[in-house]
Amino acid sequence: PVIRQVIFFPDKQIACKDFFDSVEGCSRIRCDFSHTTTGFRQLLSHIKSARKSIDIAVYCISCFEIADVVLQRHKVGVRVRVITDQSMEIAFGSQNHRFMKDGIRVHTNKPPFLMHHKFFIIDDELLCSGSFNWTSQAVTGNNESVIITNDPWTVEPFCAEFKKLWQETKPG
Amino acid sequence: PVIRQVIFFPDKQIACKDFFDSVEGCSRIRCDFSHTTTGFRQLLSHIKSARKSIDIAVYCISCFEIADVVLQRHKVGVRVRVITDQSMEIAFGSQNHRFMKDGIRVHTNKPPFLMHHKFFIIDDELLCSGSFNWTSQAVTGNNESVIITNDPWTVEPFCAEFKKLWQETKPG
Ligand SMILES: [Zn+2]
Ligand SMILES: [Zn+2]
Repeated sequence: PVIRQVIFFPDKQIACKDFFDSVEGCSRIRCDFSHTTTGFRQLLSHIKSARKSIDIAVYCISCFEIADVVLQRHKVGVRVRVITDQSMEIAFGSQNHRFMKDGIRVHTNKPPFLMHHKFFIIDDELLCSGSFNWTSQAVTGNNESVIITNDPWTVEPFCAEFKKLWQETKPG
Repeated sequence: PVIRQVIFFPDKQIACKDFFDSVEGCSRIRCDFSHTTTGFRQLLSHIKSARKSIDIAVYCISCFEIADVVLQRHKVGVRVRVITDQSMEIAFGSQNHRFMKDGIRVHTNKPPFLMHHKFFIIDDELLCSGSFNWTSQAVTGNNESVIITNDPWTVEPFCAEFKKLWQETKPG
C-alpha cells in the first residue's frame, strides 16, 4: 500500500505508555497522558513495523524510548545499522553505547564533517526524513516535521546515500 | 510539471559565481570553483523561480548568498515571510536584520519552543524541506538532505503548518 504521511511536532501531550504498551491498559481515573495517538507514537509504529532492516542516519540520538523500540527490533533479528554525528560518541544521554552493547553496529563520521541527517529507512522501502532528531526535546519542545513515504523516487536516493555514508564512516 | 527531487549535501565544490551569475562568465584559466551545477545552485534556482510568494521556516539563516537571492525576489514584489528560531535575533551572522531592514516580515517563536523546521514553500505549491539550515557550513561541511516536491499531499500540510506558525509567532 502507498504510504504518504507528514508528521509535525511538538506533540501537545505525551502518550500514555500504560494505555498503549501494557496488557492491562491504563488504570488512572484521570490520566494526564494521551490515550489518542501522537506523532511520536506514529513514528514508533513505523520503526516497530520493520521486518528486515532499519537504517538510521540521525545526527543526535538521546531518547531512551525510541532506542528501546530499535533494540527490540534488533533482538528479534531485524538488521539495524546506525550512523550518528561523531559528537554523539561522548554526548550526555547518547544512546550509541546502548546500541553497541547489544551488538548493533554504529558508525560515526570523520571530522570535520557534521553528520546532520535525520532520516531512517525501514525494510529498504519506507523513508522517514525531516528536521527531527531522536531527542525528547524534539517530541514535545520543538517545531519539527517528518515526511514518511514509500514512493521510490524519494526512498531510493536515501538508500544510496545511506550505503555511501556507511562506507565512508567508521565504527565508534 | 511534476517536480520531485532530492538534494544531498555537502557539495564537493563551491559553485563559480562568475560562471553562473555574471554576463562575462568566468575568466580564470584554471578555476577552482565548479562550472557544473551544485546542490546549492539548485536550491537557489528554486528560490529564484518564485513569482508570488516565498514562505520560509528555517531554524538558522546565516548564509549571505541565500539571503541575497531572497532579497532580490522581495525587491521585485514577491511576498516573502520568514520564521526563524528566536535565538537568531542575536546570533552572529544572522540574516534576520538584513531581511527586516528591507521590509521583509520576520517572525520568531516564543520561548521555550525551539523553531527547528528547515523548510520553505514557493508560490504555495513547491516545498523544499529537510535537515538543511541556511548556513555556509551546511553547503560544504555537512551531510544534509532536502526533499523538493510539488506533490499536493506533501505541500499542503506544510502550507497549513506555516500559516499556523505565522499566527503563533511574533515579529522580531
Ligand atoms: Zn493513561
Ligand atoms: Zn570559474
